[in-house]
Amino acid sequence: MDTLHFVQQPRPLPEGFLATLRQRFGERCSTAQPVRDHHGRDESPYPAMLPDVVVFAQSVDEVAWVARHCNDHGIALIPYGAGSSLEGHLLAVQGGVCLDLSGMNKILNVHAEDFTATVQAGVTRKQLNESLRETGLFFPIDPGADASLGGMSATRASGTNAVRYGTMRENVMSLKVVTADGRIIETANRARKSSSGYDLTRLFVGSEGTLGIIVEVTVRLYPQPEAVSAAVCNFPDLDSAVRSVIQIIQMGVPIARVEFMDVGAVRATNRYSHLTLRESPLLLFEFHGSPAGVREQAELVQQITGDLGGQDFDWAERPEDRNRLWTARHNAYFAGVQLRPGCRASTTDVCVPISRLAECVGETARELDAAPFPYTIVGHVGDGNFHVLMLLDPDSDAEWNESERLNHRLVERAIAMEGTCTGEHGVGLHKQVFMQAEHGADALDVMRALKTALDPRNTLNPGKMLPPSVA
Amino acid sequence: MDTLHFVQQPRPLPEGFLATLRQRFGERCSTAQPVRDHHGRDESPYPAMLPDVVVFAQSVDEVAWVARHCNDHGIALIPYGAGSSLEGHLLAVQGGVCLDLSGMNKILNVHAEDFTATVQAGVTRKQLNESLRETGLFFPIDPGADASLGGMSATRASGTNAVRYGTMRENVMSLKVVTADGRIIETANRARKSSSGYDLTRLFVGSEGTLGIIVEVTVRLYPQPEAVSAAVCNFPDLDSAVRSVIQIIQMGVPIARVEFMDVGAVRATNRYSHLTLRESPLLLFEFHGSPAGVREQAELVQQITGDLGGQDFDWAERPEDRNRLWTARHNAYFAGVQLRPGCRASTTDVCVPISRLAECVGETARELDAAPFPYTIVGHVGDGNFHVLMLLDPDSDAEWNESERLNHRLVERAIAMEGTCTGEHGVGLHKQVFMQAEHGADALDVMRALKTALDPRNTLNPGKMLPPSVA
Repeated sequence: MDTLHFVQQPRPLPEGFLATLRQRFGERCSTAQPVRDHHGRDESPYPAMLPDVVVFAQSVDEVAWVARHCNDHGIALIPYGAGSSLEGHLLAVQGGVCLDLSGMNKILNVHAEDFTATVQAGVTRKQLNESLRETGLFFPIDPGADASLGGMSATRASGTNAVRYGTMRENVMSLKVVTADGRIIETANRARKSSSGYDLTRLFVGSEGTLGIIVEVTVRLYPQPEAVSAAVCNFPDLDSAVRSVIQIIQMGVPIARVEFMDVGAVRATNRYSHLTLRESPLLLFEFHGSPAGVREQAELVQQITGDLGGQDFDWAERPEDRNRLWTARHNAYFAGVQLRPGCRASTTDVCVPISRLAECVGETARELDAAPFPYTIVGHVGDGNFHVLMLLDPDSDAEWNESERLNHRLVERAIAMEGTCTGEHGVGLHKQVFMQAEHGADALDVMRALKTALDPRNTLNPGKMLPPSVA
Repeated sequence: MDTLHFVQQPRPLPEGFLATLRQRFGERCSTAQPVRDHHGRDESPYPAMLPDVVVFAQSVDEVAWVARHCNDHGIALIPYGAGSSLEGHLLAVQGGVCLDLSGMNKILNVHAEDFTATVQAGVTRKQLNESLRETGLFFPIDPGADASLGGMSATRASGTNAVRYGTMRENVMSLKVVTADGRIIETANRARKSSSGYDLTRLFVGSEGTLGIIVEVTVRLYPQPEAVSAAVCNFPDLDSAVRSVIQIIQMGVPIARVEFMDVGAVRATNRYSHLTLRESPLLLFEFHGSPAGVREQAELVQQITGDLGGQDFDWAERPEDRNRLWTARHNAYFAGVQLRPGCRASTTDVCVPISRLAECVGETARELDAAPFPYTIVGHVGDGNFHVLMLLDPDSDAEWNESERLNHRLVERAIAMEGTCTGEHGVGLHKQVFMQAEHGADALDVMRALKTALDPRNTLNPGKMLPPSVA
C-alpha cells in the first residue's frame, strides 16, 4: 500500500569518479544544486531524489563513454529526456549519474518514400512533426506532453489516437541503443517487417532505461489525412457510450480517435474552455480520411450512437470547431485541476479489454463518489484505457492514502478483468507493487533474468520497474 | 557459402530417458521410423535430420513435463506445429525430442467485443477463420501454407495482407509459453495496450522455439470487410509499378493487399491458372472497406497507376472474378514450379525499404537472367518483401551452388539497402550465415545473452537462428 514512500539510498561515488567525468565533459558535467534539483524529479507525485551529478551528452559516443564509466564503477545511470514521466522513472533512488539527452535533438533523416524518420533520442514529438510539415507525413503518437522520442520509446507511450495508429510498440521500427557496458547496437534495420532474430526493438521499447540507453529512434510516419473532422455525442450513461464504440469498431469504421469524458470532466471542461457541452457522459470523435470517407464515417457513427441512446450528435467539419473541441479535450487535465485550486493531482492509468470497460469505470466511479476529494475520468475508450484524475489536498496525508487505496482497488479490478495496471504511463516507481499480481511470479522471474543478462551490474536506472525479488 | 551442409550431431539419450517418456505418454511417444522421418523434415531444401523420439502433447502440463525432463538431462527439444517451415527450423540437428503440438488444437475462446481469440498452439489459421465465420470477424495473417498459430508466432509470419493488417508481431496480443525449465508463463493480458514490464510477447514472437515453447496464442481479430474488390494493372517496368505503390500509400489509400509479379510469374500463372493476363510486370490489388470506400480506393488507384504508365487497369468487383485473380496469385508458387517439372524449388525472402525495392529486384533479376535455371519473382510490394523462386535440377550440385551464390549476393544487396535477409520465413538453419552481417556482432551478442538467460542448458531447438559464436 505504501507506494509513495520510497527512500533514497544513495551510494557514495568512488574516488576520482567525478574528476574523470569533469575532465571529459567540462561544463557539461554539473553538480550544481539547481541542476540536480531539476533532474531529480519528474511529473510524478514523488518527492525529489537527486542524482549526484548531471551530464549533458551530445553524441552517441559520449553516452557510450558514460555507460562504460558507470558500469566499471557500479554507479547508477539514469537517462533523462523531457522530464515528463508521471511515475517516478527519473528519480535517482541510488543517486549516481543523470544523463541528460535533451541536447541530442537532431533529426537525422526523413525517408518520405519509406514513411520513416530517424531522430536522436532528445527530439520531441512536436519538433518532429514541425519538421515533417512539408513532407505530407506526420508522426501520430501524442501522449499529451511534448515528450522526447527517447522517453516515449522507453515508456511505450501512446495517447489519444492509438486506436487507429497504435502505440510506440507498433511505431518504433528500430533503435540505436547503448548497452550497460557501453557497446552500441542497432536493434533492427529499416525493413518494414523482418523475421530475423529476436525482436530487440520491442525489448527496449518500454524498458524504462533499465536494459540500455536509447540514443536514436527510427519511427513510422503516416500520410497527413486529406480530410479531418470531429464529432461529439452525449449519452445517458457510460454503458451506452462504450457499446457504441464497440459497434463502431465492429462495423470497421477506422476512427482516428474516440475519447470518453465523464460528467465531471465535461463540467470542468465547460468551465475551463468556455464551452456549453451537455453535462452528461460524452464521446469525442475524430475521423481521418478522404472528404467522402470522413463524411461516411461520421454518418455511420451518428446512426450507431443514435440507435444506442446517443444525443446531440454534433459534427464539426470546420477546422476551428474541430480544434476548439480537441483543444478542450487536450486541456482536460488542467481543467480538472482547476476544480480544486492549489490541489495536488494523482492520475491512474489502467487498461482493460473494452468489453469490461463500462463495468470497470462504473465500479471505480461508485467508489470514488465516496472519496473526500473531487475527481474526473477521461478515457481512450477504443483501447480500454482510462485515467482517473484525483484532486487532493496537498497537506492531507489522509487524502493521499485514500487516493492510493482507491488506485489499488482499481488496479486489482483491472487485473481481474484481464487488464493492466498501466496502459501508457509505465511502471517507474509507482506501479512496481502491482507487477507480481499482473504478470505472475514466473513471468517476473523471466523479466529479472533479462535484466540480469543485459545489465549484470544493475547500473541502468536501478530500482525501477522490477520490484525487488522477495527470495 | 556452404549453407546447405549442416551435419547432424546427435547426442545419445541418457539411460532411462526414453523409458520415462514412454511411461508418461504411452502410445503418444513414438520412435517408429516413419514418425521420426515425418518429423525430421520440413518444406526447406535440407535433407532430413531425425529426432530420436516424437511425443504428441495434448496439454500445457504435458509440454511443461517434457520441457523439464529434457532440461534435466540436457536433451534437445523441438516444438513441431504444421511442419511448414521453409528454413529448416524443425530439423533435429542434435537428435532429441520432437514435441508435436498439432493435437493441441482447441479454440479456447473468442471475445468478439474485444476482437480477440485465444487458441492452442496447434490450431491452424484456416481452422481459426472457419470458426470465426459467424462472428463477423476474421484473422488476417495468411502466410500461404495452412500453418499453425504457434508456428506462425514462432517465425513472426506474415503474408499478402501485412501491408494493411501487419504481421504476427502486431497481431499476437499474448502468449502462454513453457520455459526451458518447464514453468508456465503468460506474456501479457488481454489489454489492447500496456506499458507494464518488458515486452515478453514480442520476445517470444519470432524466437523460433529457441527461448520457450509457445502453447497458447491470443490474437487480434478484425471485422470482416463489408465490401471487397480487386484490381489488376500491368506496367512497362518494375520501377513504375513500385512508384505507383509508394504514391498510393502516400495518398493514404488503405490497400489491403498489393502484390507484384514479374513477367515470368505472370507467364507461369497464365499457363497454370488458364488466365490471359498481359505478360508484363503486374500489380494485383485488393481493397477492403464500405462499398463506397472500395470504389473510391479503386478509382484513386486507377488514376495513380494511369499517371505512372500503368496499363489495362481492370477492376474486379464480382466475387468470382476477384477470387479467380487471387487464387491465381495464391497458386503462383505451384505455377512457377510447373515451369520445370520435377524441379527442386528454392525461395529467397529479403525485405528492403520500399524506396530501394525496384533497384533491389532489378539488380537481382539481371543476375538471375544469367543463371542456368528458370526463376520467377513475386513480391509483397507494400512491405518491400519479395521472393525469388529458383527452379533447380534436383540432381545438379552446380545449380544448387549457383542458387546459393545468387541468394548470398541478394542478401548482401538487401542488407546494404538497410533491409533484412528474411521478411517472413525466419532464420532457421538457412539464414544463420547472414545474422552477423545483418545485426552486427554486438547485437548478436545481446541475442546470445538472451538465449543463455532463458535457456541456459541450450535444450530448446538448439542450433537454430543464432550462429555459433566464433569466440
